[in-house]
Amino acid sequence: MNFDDIRIIGGSASQGLTKAICADLGMAPGRGQVQRHPDGNLVVRVGENVRGRDVYVIQATAFAANDHFMELLFWIDACKRGSAASVTAVVPYFSYAKGDKKDEPRVSIRARVCADAMEAAGVDRVVTIDLHAPQIQGFFRVPVDDLTALPVLGQVVRDMKLPDLVVVAPDAGFAKKARMWATYLGVDLAIADKERRDDHGDLVISGIIGDVRDRTALIVDDFTVMGSTLTCVARRLVEAGARQVYAAITHGLFTRACVEALQESPIKTLLVTDTVEHGLDDLGGKIRVVTVAPLFAEAIRRIHTRQSISVLFES
Amino acid sequence: MNFDDIRIIGGSASQGLTKAICADLGMAPGRGQVQRHPDGNLVVRVGENVRGRDVYVIQATAFAANDHFMELLFWIDACKRGSAASVTAVVPYFSYAKGDKKDEPRVSIRARVCADAMEAAGVDRVVTIDLHAPQIQGFFRVPVDDLTALPVLGQVVRDMKLPDLVVVAPDAGFAKKARMWATYLGVDLAIADKERRDDHGDLVISGIIGDVRDRTALIVDDFTVMGSTLTCVARRLVEAGARQVYAAITHGLFTRACVEALQESPIKTLLVTDTVEHGLDDLGGKIRVVTVAPLFAEAIRRIHTRQSISVLFES
Amino acid sequence: MNFDDIRIIGGSASQGLTKAICADLGMAPGRGQVQRHPDGNLVVRVGENVRGRDVYVIQATAFAANDHFMELLFWIDACKRGSAASVTAVVPYFSYAKGDKKDEPRVSIRARVCADAMEAAGVDRVVTIDLHAPQIQGFFRVPVDDLTALPVLGQVVRDMKLPDLVVVAPDAGFAKKARMWATYLGVDLAIADKERRDDHGDLVISGIIGDVRDRTALIVDDFTVMGSTLTCVARRLVEAGARQVYAAITHGLFTRACVEALQESPIKTLLVTDTVEHGLDDLGGKIRVVTVAPLFAEAIRRIHTRQSISVLFES
Amino acid sequence: MNFDDIRIIGGSASQGLTKAICADLGMAPGRGQVQRHPDGNLVVRVGENVRGRDVYVIQATAFAANDHFMELLFWIDACKRGSAASVTAVVPYFSYAKGDKKDEPRVSIRARVCADAMEAAGVDRVVTIDLHAPQIQGFFRVPVDDLTALPVLGQVVRDMKLPDLVVVAPDAGFAKKARMWATYLGVDLAIADKERRDDHGDLVISGIIGDVRDRTALIVDDFTVMGSTLTCVARRLVEAGARQVYAAITHGLFTRACVEALQESPIKTLLVTDTVEHGLDDLGGKIRVVTVAPLFAEAIRRIHTRQSISVLFES
Amino acid sequence: MNFDDIRIIGGSASQGLTKAICADLGMAPGRGQVQRHPDGNLVVRVGENVRGRDVYVIQATAFAANDHFMELLFWIDACKRGSAASVTAVVPYFSYAKGDKKDEPRVSIRARVCADAMEAAGVDRVVTIDLHAPQIQGFFRVPVDDLTALPVLGQVVRDMKLPDLVVVAPDAGFAKKARMWATYLGVDLAIADKERRDDHGDLVISGIIGDVRDRTALIVDDFTVMGSTLTCVARRLVEAGARQVYAAITHGLFTRACVEALQESPIKTLLVTDTVEHGLDDLGGKIRVVTVAPLFAEAIRRIHTRQSISVLFES
Amino acid sequence: MNFDDIRIIGGSASQGLTKAICADLGMAPGRGQVQRHPDGNLVVRVGENVRGRDVYVIQATAFAANDHFMELLFWIDACKRGSAASVTAVVPYFSYAKGDKKDEPRVSIRARVCADAMEAAGVDRVVTIDLHAPQIQGFFRVPVDDLTALPVLGQVVRDMKLPDLVVVAPDAGFAKKARMWATYLGVDLAIADKERRDDHGDLVISGIIGDVRDRTALIVDDFTVMGSTLTCVARRLVEAGARQVYAAITHGLFTRACVEALQESPIKTLLVTDTVEHGLDDLGGKIRVVTVAPLFAEAIRRIHTRQSISVLFES
Repeated sequence: MNFDDIRIIGGSASQGLTKAICADLGMAPGRGQVQRHPDGNLVVRVGENVRGRDVYVIQATAFAANDHFMELLFWIDACKRGSAASVTAVVPYFSYAKGDKKDEPRVSIRARVCADAMEAAGVDRVVTIDLHAPQIQGFFRVPVDDLTALPVLGQVVRDMKLPDLVVVAPDAGFAKKARMWATYLGVDLAIADKERRDDHGDLVISGIIGDVRDRTALIVDDFTVMGSTLTCVARRLVEAGARQVYAAITHGLFTRACVEALQESPIKTLLVTDTVEHGLDDLGGKIRVVTVAPLFAEAIRRIHTRQSISVLFES
Repeated sequence: MNFDDIRIIGGSASQGLTKAICADLGMAPGRGQVQRHPDGNLVVRVGENVRGRDVYVIQATAFAANDHFMELLFWIDACKRGSAASVTAVVPYFSYAKGDKKDEPRVSIRARVCADAMEAAGVDRVVTIDLHAPQIQGFFRVPVDDLTALPVLGQVVRDMKLPDLVVVAPDAGFAKKARMWATYLGVDLAIADKERRDDHGDLVISGIIGDVRDRTALIVDDFTVMGSTLTCVARRLVEAGARQVYAAITHGLFTRACVEALQESPIKTLLVTDTVEHGLDDLGGKIRVVTVAPLFAEAIRRIHTRQSISVLFES
Repeated sequence: MNFDDIRIIGGSASQGLTKAICADLGMAPGRGQVQRHPDGNLVVRVGENVRGRDVYVIQATAFAANDHFMELLFWIDACKRGSAASVTAVVPYFSYAKGDKKDEPRVSIRARVCADAMEAAGVDRVVTIDLHAPQIQGFFRVPVDDLTALPVLGQVVRDMKLPDLVVVAPDAGFAKKARMWATYLGVDLAIADKERRDDHGDLVISGIIGDVRDRTALIVDDFTVMGSTLTCVARRLVEAGARQVYAAITHGLFTRACVEALQESPIKTLLVTDTVEHGLDDLGGKIRVVTVAPLFAEAIRRIHTRQSISVLFES
Repeated sequence: MNFDDIRIIGGSASQGLTKAICADLGMAPGRGQVQRHPDGNLVVRVGENVRGRDVYVIQATAFAANDHFMELLFWIDACKRGSAASVTAVVPYFSYAKGDKKDEPRVSIRARVCADAMEAAGVDRVVTIDLHAPQIQGFFRVPVDDLTALPVLGQVVRDMKLPDLVVVAPDAGFAKKARMWATYLGVDLAIADKERRDDHGDLVISGIIGDVRDRTALIVDDFTVMGSTLTCVARRLVEAGARQVYAAITHGLFTRACVEALQESPIKTLLVTDTVEHGLDDLGGKIRVVTVAPLFAEAIRRIHTRQSISVLFES
Repeated sequence: MNFDDIRIIGGSASQGLTKAICADLGMAPGRGQVQRHPDGNLVVRVGENVRGRDVYVIQATAFAANDHFMELLFWIDACKRGSAASVTAVVPYFSYAKGDKKDEPRVSIRARVCADAMEAAGVDRVVTIDLHAPQIQGFFRVPVDDLTALPVLGQVVRDMKLPDLVVVAPDAGFAKKARMWATYLGVDLAIADKERRDDHGDLVISGIIGDVRDRTALIVDDFTVMGSTLTCVARRLVEAGARQVYAAITHGLFTRACVEALQESPIKTLLVTDTVEHGLDDLGGKIRVVTVAPLFAEAIRRIHTRQSISVLFES
Repeated sequence: MNFDDIRIIGGSASQGLTKAICADLGMAPGRGQVQRHPDGNLVVRVGENVRGRDVYVIQATAFAANDHFMELLFWIDACKRGSAASVTAVVPYFSYAKGDKKDEPRVSIRARVCADAMEAAGVDRVVTIDLHAPQIQGFFRVPVDDLTALPVLGQVVRDMKLPDLVVVAPDAGFAKKARMWATYLGVDLAIADKERRDDHGDLVISGIIGDVRDRTALIVDDFTVMGSTLTCVARRLVEAGARQVYAAITHGLFTRACVEALQESPIKTLLVTDTVEHGLDDLGGKIRVVTVAPLFAEAIRRIHTRQSISVLFES
């Protein structure tokens, strides 16, 4: 791998992950600078020559999702106008992936808006992990390599040797991916049947479809923001007779309130990756972070050396 | 509604539905002609002036999916080059909607390829019904109005007053839509946990998640080709104690073999719409066809008179 | 003017201006809703039927510039996917207009990135006022009608009958536009020769080119954020013998600190328009706001009735 | 030539030609798989890593032209999404080249529709041979290298040392290309003046323009499907006193009926290339196939090693 | 026909034709101005409001082809940025239509370059007459209505009642269109077999294919610049025994030298239309101009009133 | 630097500069040919293989600006269709850069029209020098490297050791760039306050803003065509007490009349670069030409060897 052909630039939302990826690759992160003006404008400056190089811009969009996304667009444009050979956007968490359909009249398909804006800015390839829906790859014309944290998280679960395990999807929409987890772990599947009540806006889980009595339940999901789905489902599982409850998710958008809610919930341990930088010093005793930096590093290595990366998707 | 501003052209795969839609609207179908040359080439000719008119081309893509799709592209191009004000593709069944993601390495996202080809040909709007995934709307830049047959089929089910009903998703991937059916009918949900075995390629349903004993099961799905999923799930439901089994799907790609398989299955009645023209004279005694022509006619009427069509999506 | 053919939607950054424009036009603002999720994502919902209508979305991008810009993109997309006949983005203040060139190596031309993103989202026309550079019209392929506040502000200055007036450009870059002000008012031009020092980052005005002694100086500029350029130039003008100092700008991104700085400066009165909503209750005694709502309303009226709007640019 | 930088994939319509080309190049064809589902959908899978490679997809579109064309689009998309460095579509026979103009009102320019679809799918270059009209190169924005079989077929004719040769264009539309044949062979030109009669749909040749009495006539054309033009012209040539009749065409879309018609015609020998795979075991005694595999192989070799391929067009 | 909805602007190369078309339509030409700066730059100004109007820009590209073409692009852009509802380019003579293929290595397909530039500038429709090749319609994505002067010129020929008429194509490339002339007039076809010699660059007609002895020959072609092909073919026809020679072409790019050459040639009368403005006062006694202004006027009228214009193509 | 990977083609407007650049690089210019047909059409032919090569086309657009620009488009297209790896347009003088905004109603933004046409033709990168406005970089999506002649010309001025120097902008619009000159030379700035009078169309300089008495004035500008601005400003400077007047511009579009006007003006020496080829043998004694060929050569060298070229912009 010729390091002079490649530049890795970490956006302001993914400084930590960028360092970890670069450390894994044995190279220094590219120099760059982001400035925020008092009128809200961002200015990005690529701090070194990228002419003819393959640039990887690593930037999650979370919490300040719009700032992060616009910054990403400007990085892409700055690199392209700086004559980069190619720009790959590595987006560990892509918040607008959730805006992937018109589930109400006259709303925007925001993920497609973002995809178009990225392509208009000149992106050549996108790398993500556990996109909210696999169809989002089709929102892009450029290649999208959607990695998955399942093998990384799944191996940790295997190592925990939890007895009488049953995988639980927190709602019908996640049933298909939960089925993959169940297959990976070789255990049964159950589904929480969720409905949102209007009285206090509180979430109500009407029931659990499938058998969880006296089992160890592992709730799986792609992300949590407030922790409310996870904690509600966990409580309903306990009511339904589950002996103990674990959870595993890819993206944790943790806030102080969320961490506290999880701490008070019946969930024993929540496995999560480091795709989102939350800035919290203390995640309580229940959250266990598993890094995906080596996964991203390996993806970059394989892209650069023209090897297949589909092997990374296998469990 | 000024009929001179509008032309409705039926492609070769949707002649019957076009007639029914036009009858509902009280207008004659537009003249057009499709010819197939010995080298396999298709030629389409729009048989009347479309200059400045809003043209609706109605064409499902089923069975001879590639012929139908290419024909659709040529209709769009012929109308645009004939100076139509706009061309709306009404696609009652869009077979390549199933190719909506990269579930294996190095496959095509065929639905996006089709969307791009339609947009390159000049389509201005698309009308579909029960697309395989709602995200496919995002594969298009032009507006897509995705109708749903749920209220039409659901009303028929309500009228049947089936006792102790439970809605059954044939696999985890359809759980989310089945949840909508269950909500519409106010009943419980169960999910067939499907896996494909490699020995004889035969389908094996490993189990039913949720309670179906002594209940009337209604399998819901978006389409069937061979009938094998429906019949397998039906048998497994009987084994699991279901008292009787019904099914309701939007798109029926019926072949003789499929009709026979359904006839011999435990399914009492299969409700299906008329989105696909199968050319069979006899569907046996179990298949009951519910027309969606009035739904499409109403959509065209509302599009043309600038009324909201979101009301058509409501149950 | 047929009000049923038109919808005016105010984005979250321009609620006040939207109301004023709609009041001038004698119609109600269109219904819409913006929601901010805890993960930072925005959701916009157009609250009424826009099918076949000409929609005007009014949204400045200021302070929370990235949130406002992304919201604008989503409004455009939501309207287009809701089958609007056309979408005109009315952007009273477009913060990224300042990112209009590569004045350093490897920076982004952010205004072009924004233009491309808006066109990708489907915008059909753009209306702005006193864009940072007139060339930005050329960043768009769609028509841009760039209004100017000069006649509105200029008339107020004329009415003030200031004696021995001289127009002052705050730097060489604004000399050309200041020349237009001088011509409009029929007075002389002077130019502050600005340089930024590195020691404390403080602004230093090295001198005033042209004669201001015993004159009334009117500093003109397109916008202010911190007020520092205006106050520095004002002090330097006083040092150079100016009898009194006034200022007129189009866009005021006022913060509490800025208002205080202006209050303490030698500037007697600062004329400014209402393009930016700053949320401050008290602007002190020196800032005088002149509304441009009638100007935007007239532009919309003329666009809708197919009249020329170039007359609005004339002084 | 570094074989690791290159992949050659044969589509289902050009398996034989692909093998011959790969044999000439001394490399193995790339692995790939096409599957046809009962609903008519095609699925293509590229069977090996193409990341960073230059891929050549070889696929004629003939007989089942729409299936073959859609398959081609999916190959292109699959390779691009699989991160191929470039995809070159080698299309030995492109049936829709015949749809190159609006010769009637409100028809599609189908070749442009196909070109746009291929470019939307991401094709980087196209290689063809004896396109129906040279203008079709202009339907593409990407480079098109249109090879010609004239030197290959022409050399065979030269070697036959036919006495008193005259080249015959089967209609006025082919006169220009026939002129090239006559120049290549250094002989005279005649033109069959064709008109289609409506009574039985049979072809009637109204006369031969130019002198063919006691000459050896060589009919040249770009393709034949039914053989009817060739046999009609041949008979008319005999009536006009030609001593013997030969024919040479590039693309033979042979069916059993066509082969029999040719067998019974006055044509002594029909020269044809192997661009189209017809699946017939026996072509009768009159059809002589000349391979163009070395021509395509040489084109690929030259493209890959950055040599000019214009020399291949010279006679 | 609502004249307020429409604007017709004549470019500098088609002032006369524009006046004639407007006179036929009973409306005044739109105001506009073209200025040429000393550095060679052109500036166009649309002199009246075009907002929401359908604009027709009439501009041939001949002699100063590049100036005329660039002017056309600027007219299109000026109208689009002036918010015209649509812009139709009416191009009576499109010189770069001749650059429609790669007949040599490494040349440009100039007609496609022009088509792309026009579409990039925003043209919505193109109207031409007797394009050099019908395939050029396919170079555009927007509708192209290619009129033909054949019925206009042909009727004049019919009225001349020339005895023993034979239509003569000046080379093999024009044989197909000459076939249409022969069919229209109900007479035979002959073809001049042209080759260019290198010794003095002079044109040599090697022979006439077909029978012209004691006949009246009518040479037909799409255009002439120097008149050399026409006069050469005419002489060769006389040598071959033709009793008298006439000619009919659509586009006459007459220069003084060309007019003199025709005057001295055996051609009795040359019929030509007024698509090209040559600025010559005296065309000699042999050239007879037939106007196509009514044809263009009728096309505009039918486009505007949404009637079919295919009837204009019929003979 | 591998010369086989690169081709440099000089357009007809930049033959001399191309030779100088190639000489600096130590390589031969690429073969190419431009032909002008009597109908005004241009034909370009690339005279050697460019397959897989990085091609630099060098072509100013001046005097016959439209011919030169169209030729440039055809070069780009010819190279791209000839399978060049990339095409960089090096445009030493881009006349339409002046058409960069809508300063009047209903005019074209001609620079954007040109940018779009170049991108549609396939250009991959653009190199210019002292563009009329830096924003024009944003008219392109491809990277634009805008060099500057300031350091080259400025060093010559430094070497002249002119006493009591003051830099003079010829109008307010050039004040910002003149500020850069003043900073580079470490001297003061003055601005000529220009207005155009209508009586005889003659230019009138109403005054000089800033102090020039007893100073050496250096007028700086980007280009001159007629020399009238330069000579007027020079005379006004003398009236205002300047001791002597010099001038420095990048682009000189010299005509005989312009050279004479300068000769008779108070300007002692006019420094100018060789970006424009004027074809004059004698420039009089006052014009001193400084070559920028080494600057362009260095830019090409750095682009090709992937080095930063931003160092070339530094003073």
